[in-house]
Amino acid sequence: MRIDIITVLPELLKSPFEASILKRAIEKKLVEVHFHNLRDYSTGNYKQVDDYQFGGGAGMVLMVEPIDKCISQLQQEREYDEIIYMTPDGATLSQGTANEMSLKKNLIILCGHYKGVDQRVRDMFVTREISIGDYVLSGGELAAAVFCDAIIRLLPGVLNDETSALTDTFQDNLLAPPVYTRPSEYKGIKVPEILLSGDFPKIEKWREEQALERTKKRRPDLL
Amino acid sequence: MRIDIITVLPELLKSPFEASILKRAIEKKLVEVHFHNLRDYSTGNYKQVDDYQFGGGAGMVLMVEPIDKCISQLQQEREYDEIIYMTPDGATLSQGTANEMSLKKNLIILCGHYKGVDQRVRDMFVTREISIGDYVLSGGELAAAVFCDAIIRLLPGVLNDETSALTDTFQDNLLAPPVYTRPSEYKGIKVPEILLSGDFPKIEKWREEQALERTKKRRPDLL
Repeated sequence: MRIDIITVLPELLKSPFEASILKRAIEKKLVEVHFHNLRDYSTGNYKQVDDYQFGGGAGMVLMVEPIDKCISQLQQEREYDEIIYMTPDGATLSQGTANEMSLKKNLIILCGHYKGVDQRVRDMFVTREISIGDYVLSGGELAAAVFCDAIIRLLPGVLNDETSALTDTFQDNLLAPPVYTRPSEYKGIKVPEILLSGDFPKIEKWREEQALERTKKRRPDLL
Repeated sequence: MRIDIITVLPELLKSPFEASILKRAIEKKLVEVHFHNLRDYSTGNYKQVDDYQFGGGAGMVLMVEPIDKCISQLQQEREYDEIIYMTPDGATLSQGTANEMSLKKNLIILCGHYKGVDQRVRDMFVTREISIGDYVLSGGELAAAVFCDAIIRLLPGVLNDETSALTDTFQDNLLAPPVYTRPSEYKGIKVPEILLSGDFPKIEKWREEQALERTKKRRPDLL
């Protein structure tokens, strides 16, 4: 998989891709991630990439031309499965979308900033608009990092123990059951006895019950 | 506002807090953000902070003792309004929650990693569990960065133009209307004429209609 991220703030995105699982995935060459600074595609002397809104109002808007130049150049080099715009009014990201996107080969991710991008960018180039949730961020960069993390961890070979992703919350539409580790008693609070029993079929059953109960209580909408 | 983030991967969190709006908010002393490396609170020679799950199964679990030590030390220094655990089975973050949390004084944010934290941490210390969306990430760090961004940008003085946050998507339960900037025509595609008219009451009305129409089409659940 190859991911090209277009942003006005590549420096904001650095550390999440240089640590932990994303770093390992890149080092193992399971994914390539390239950052493109929109300012490198600006025209004119001032490296301008944004301007005031037509019609007035607070907040700057990213201009269509630099984005067009950047996307067009990338598209000359290879074919892309999707050009994704991270925006709070896009379709809400779900585990299902993450699963689907993890099967793609080449993705462009466009990060909005300030008030977002000129609508013509969305009309002319973007094939999919994704929101990570119903809240507003100062830009699309963290949303892009979240989206990348959600899909990259699903690529075969990225997680050390692949069964781990399969037992995650949401993969079966249930929340995960509670987990415990040593010590078996801490400040008087004990781990549920069943987990220490060694009776694995029973433990499996307990976990299913706990997952169902937790989902009923916290997220009945998932059932 | 003061935010203390407890994590096994402080290095992952660096760059989002060193760029753009979060950086400015910290420099202007509108918020203090402190990272606490859980490994500094581990006991024993191996700086162990995680261990296998009781009952078997893939994925490591963060141990209760180092988290207890870190939280207890922070609580000795000041009172906290909330101890928040970032977890996919928490309550889904909304703009309303972000607004509410932006009014707090001191927050602890605990990032899970691997399979999450020992359930006793959640039972003994955590006052609120928050999920940024229905998908799984490799850890709570990016979720914590998203949550911080969502609340810090709301603090008075953080955004240059404060009316900008008020016209965001979700603040009135509507998606934002389309935005345009120069040039007024690009590759034959023109900006809607109304936005160039200078008739601000009419523009305002057009934007309201567009916001309503877009919300009806994309997110009828918000209405």
